[in-house]
Amino acid sequence: MTSSNGERRRGRRPGGTDTRTALLTAAREVFTEQGYDGATVRAIARKAGVDAAMVNHWFGGKEALFAEAVLQLPFNPREQIAQVLGTGDPATLGERIVRTFLTIWDAHDGGIFAAMIRSVASHEKVAKALREFFHTNVFGQLAGVATDNGELRSNLVASQMIGLGVVRYVAKFDPITATDVETVVKAVGPTLQRYLTGPLA
Amino acid sequence: MTSSNGERRRGRRPGGTDTRTALLTAAREVFTEQGYDGATVRAIARKAGVDAAMVNHWFGGKEALFAEAVLQLPFNPREQIAQVLGTGDPATLGERIVRTFLTIWDAHDGGIFAAMIRSVASHEKVAKALREFFHTNVFGQLAGVATDNGELRSNLVASQMIGLGVVRYVAKFDPITATDVETVVKAVGPTLQRYLTGPLA
Repeated sequence: MTSSNGERRRGRRPGGTDTRTALLTAAREVFTEQGYDGATVRAIARKAGVDAAMVNHWFGGKEALFAEAVLQLPFNPREQIAQVLGTGDPATLGERIVRTFLTIWDAHDGGIFAAMIRSVASHEKVAKALREFFHTNVFGQLAGVATDNGELRSNLVASQMIGLGVVRYVAKFDPITATDVETVVKAVGPTLQRYLTGPLA
Repeated sequence: MTSSNGERRRGRRPGGTDTRTALLTAAREVFTEQGYDGATVRAIARKAGVDAAMVNHWFGGKEALFAEAVLQLPFNPREQIAQVLGTGDPATLGERIVRTFLTIWDAHDGGIFAAMIRSVASHEKVAKALREFFHTNVFGQLAGVATDNGELRSNLVASQMIGLGVVRYVAKFDPITATDVETVVKAVGPTLQRYLTGPLA
């Protein structure tokens, strides 16, 4: 997906859109390796092979770069949710959300999930960015399939999925950190199904 | 609950158990205000009015002090869970767990919850301490009331409660961050009930 820095350097326009792409790619790697606090704009720019001023030019700063580079990774939430909502039996929607979530994050070893949680819990500006991001890209779609109280129902779905991510990828509780995907799907899927379309009271 | 530093200073034996208590109290305040990384042993000791060497003497270091001071706050999980499990209708156990969790954490504004999540996501040693703490103080008791697969069921309960804490106190998603306790109890209680005693597959 990414070429080496050496390749990027050749023929790149210093302020062009390939600089932006290179910064996003570098930011994902550095934030994931170093965490939000540990990652520096200088280190990200150096990995991207561009001047550090380009971070402000393209993103306005470290937080906005993080929000775009990390919160949208390792998948585009809006697209994934649209795909899950748009295909398959509505009665198995809960299971499909859990299966998609675990399949994607399992493939990425959860390091990015821990970095996201760490940043959200450490920086109110990142938490605010996450709220705005989820509101725009996630909750609206989920609310669209909810029977009523769409915003509360989408918050409840988020609570279970974020908590599942924390115990499986961050706290690494035993045995759920190593439980096979389909067992978790069968256990947690009905929870999401009820949160979206079942009785809440 | 706590006297002022000035009062503590008078008549305190430098290495006595009131030093230990003063350190726990100071550690809770400093870790909550500064986060795990930002809090220093020196600052905690200064707030407690004791020598920094007392932290090693009584706790072995910053991480152990954090684990005892922060992870056990604002309540003793073992005692709270024993109380919830030991009283009331087994059919409303899920609701009572949610009600107790929200009532306690709402009263503390969630700042300590965010500090706990931040530390667990930032430090593998703290995550390990949390795993050991939960295994010893929480999961064993929950597994005792589970119909089968006690450890997995207790992990599932933890996933929902931790996730609920994250969305209500850390990410502060709207509307769940301000939804009244009983509405959340009715929505989430049945989830825990099924995780503990219902069908998982």
